[in-house]
Amino acid sequence: MEFKLTVLGTASAMPVTERKQSAQVLQVHGRFFLFDCGEGTQTQLLRSHIPSMKIDTLLISHIHGDHIFGLFPLLSTLGMKKRTAPLNVYAPTNFGPILKFFLSYFGEGISYEIRFTPLTMKEPQVVYQTKKIAIEAFPLEHKIETFGFIVREKEPDLNIDKDALERLHFTLEEIGTLKRGEDVVREDEKLIIPAAEVTYRPYKPRSFAYCSDTSVFPKEAEWVRGVDLLYHEATYLSELEDQAALRHHSTAAQAARVAKEAGAGKLILGHYSSRCSDKSLYEAEAREIFPETYAADDLDVFEIPLEKLR
Amino acid sequence: MEFKLTVLGTASAMPVTERKQSAQVLQVHGRFFLFDCGEGTQTQLLRSHIPSMKIDTLLISHIHGDHIFGLFPLLSTLGMKKRTAPLNVYAPTNFGPILKFFLSYFGEGISYEIRFTPLTMKEPQVVYQTKKIAIEAFPLEHKIETFGFIVREKEPDLNIDKDALERLHFTLEEIGTLKRGEDVVREDEKLIIPAAEVTYRPYKPRSFAYCSDTSVFPKEAEWVRGVDLLYHEATYLSELEDQAALRHHSTAAQAARVAKEAGAGKLILGHYSSRCSDKSLYEAEAREIFPETYAADDLDVFEIPLEKLR
Repeated sequence: MEFKLTVLGTASAMPVTERKQSAQVLQVHGRFFLFDCGEGTQTQLLRSHIPSMKIDTLLISHIHGDHIFGLFPLLSTLGMKKRTAPLNVYAPTNFGPILKFFLSYFGEGISYEIRFTPLTMKEPQVVYQTKKIAIEAFPLEHKIETFGFIVREKEPDLNIDKDALERLHFTLEEIGTLKRGEDVVREDEKLIIPAAEVTYRPYKPRSFAYCSDTSVFPKEAEWVRGVDLLYHEATYLSELEDQAALRHHSTAAQAARVAKEAGAGKLILGHYSSRCSDKSLYEAEAREIFPETYAADDLDVFEIPLEKLR
Repeated sequence: MEFKLTVLGTASAMPVTERKQSAQVLQVHGRFFLFDCGEGTQTQLLRSHIPSMKIDTLLISHIHGDHIFGLFPLLSTLGMKKRTAPLNVYAPTNFGPILKFFLSYFGEGISYEIRFTPLTMKEPQVVYQTKKIAIEAFPLEHKIETFGFIVREKEPDLNIDKDALERLHFTLEEIGTLKRGEDVVREDEKLIIPAAEVTYRPYKPRSFAYCSDTSVFPKEAEWVRGVDLLYHEATYLSELEDQAALRHHSTAAQAARVAKEAGAGKLILGHYSSRCSDKSLYEAEAREIFPETYAADDLDVFEIPLEKLR
């Protein structure tokens, strides 16, 4: 039941040798979700031992080259590897013609279905769910249409207390009733067994938010409220706050204020400007506001351990 | 007056961590020519300290992803760096719509002109020349339309022998005559000064051929006859000659036979299959046929020194 983020690239648009461009993978309950796909993502996947064939869903924040130029190579490689499983892609609307172009000119070996869902929401909206997790997309504030994402574990099914199981000898039907959170009524015994007394949530649901390429904006903290892990771009240090505003990016301090206001568990920074590649400066600036900040390097892994509630 | 090849990528289509995909730069007389542009080329340029802004001309052998997926990122970066100098691109015809697509979706910051010349020739043909060099393109034999390239230094201008200069006191007009290889006739002195006796070629022109993604074919050796440096793909070892034929690729031994028949100076191998990344096996196989073979690693540099003729 892992909930594990691998940061594949932490550079911004101008290429540098020490860092790759934006891409991150969240591995959760055996599924792999790829957020953005800068140039070189497929090599970073290899380096991280993340099986590209097992990527379930691609979530593209916006159509800037440093976030998607690794996509054509990755899609081609999945074709060469004879992928057959469909690949979900959530991206802004103008990804549609880009995908169409790719398939016309490089689609010969693509034997799997690419299921593209355009993002158009104006506020957080669930775009994907399984029994265990849900993914929301929400708009960010960048130069062009850009979206953030939140992956949330759903509330886990209720477990029944072991002692109660032994003591009360529930029928299968009663177990079903309790697991739905409903009380069991045994009319013959004139007994009511409150679900609240004999069940418990086995663990606390975990969550991750991906805020890539954005100015901070009033609703942002509200939308990512309470996430365990918040990735927020921090292209600049505060000394270049003007640049950040001009280019619709954030500073490390601004990202930290969002994390603080949102009550996030941990803040991960990335997307550093090529003008300042000393990540410790970003970390120091943000930690003054939000101590649980980590300025990521490429291939860093952040795990949220399962917090069992009993 | 350098003539220097930097091999940026030596992997074939399936990505590996130790090698990047096809790209090479020839630096000759202060100009930089980029041959193919696989994913990650711009980072390899940074690693090789080759100034991407100074790339004069791009020569694309064919439209397969592992030879061009680094192009969009590179073109975008040149835009961010505010390039204004035009960029020449020679590529197969179907690069046209690809360039058009790129410019429509990612062209906003592209402030320089991209001068695309489609390649259609059926035999070697000069496509580019300066005072000092000429570049020929010629068809290769691959799954899709593919071209090879030869860069040749032109015969350098004739120099005039120092002793003759001192002895015969040439006028500027006479010097011009001799440099054109014509004899000087001094009617008043009843003297004929043969150009052949008082001039010499200062150096031997150098040449490089790039044969990427091809089966060997009858005319190939003839077309690259006598080049100093021959890059020839060698995707497979001879034990997989059937695979090579099937996929329109070459083995190390086949590449060596071309080099031998062509009387090349030196053979460089690359484009190794991900099935065999031990380059020494390729080198050993080829050297049995053509001893001057070097199986390249990424970032290897091969220089052809200037051979002065006097």
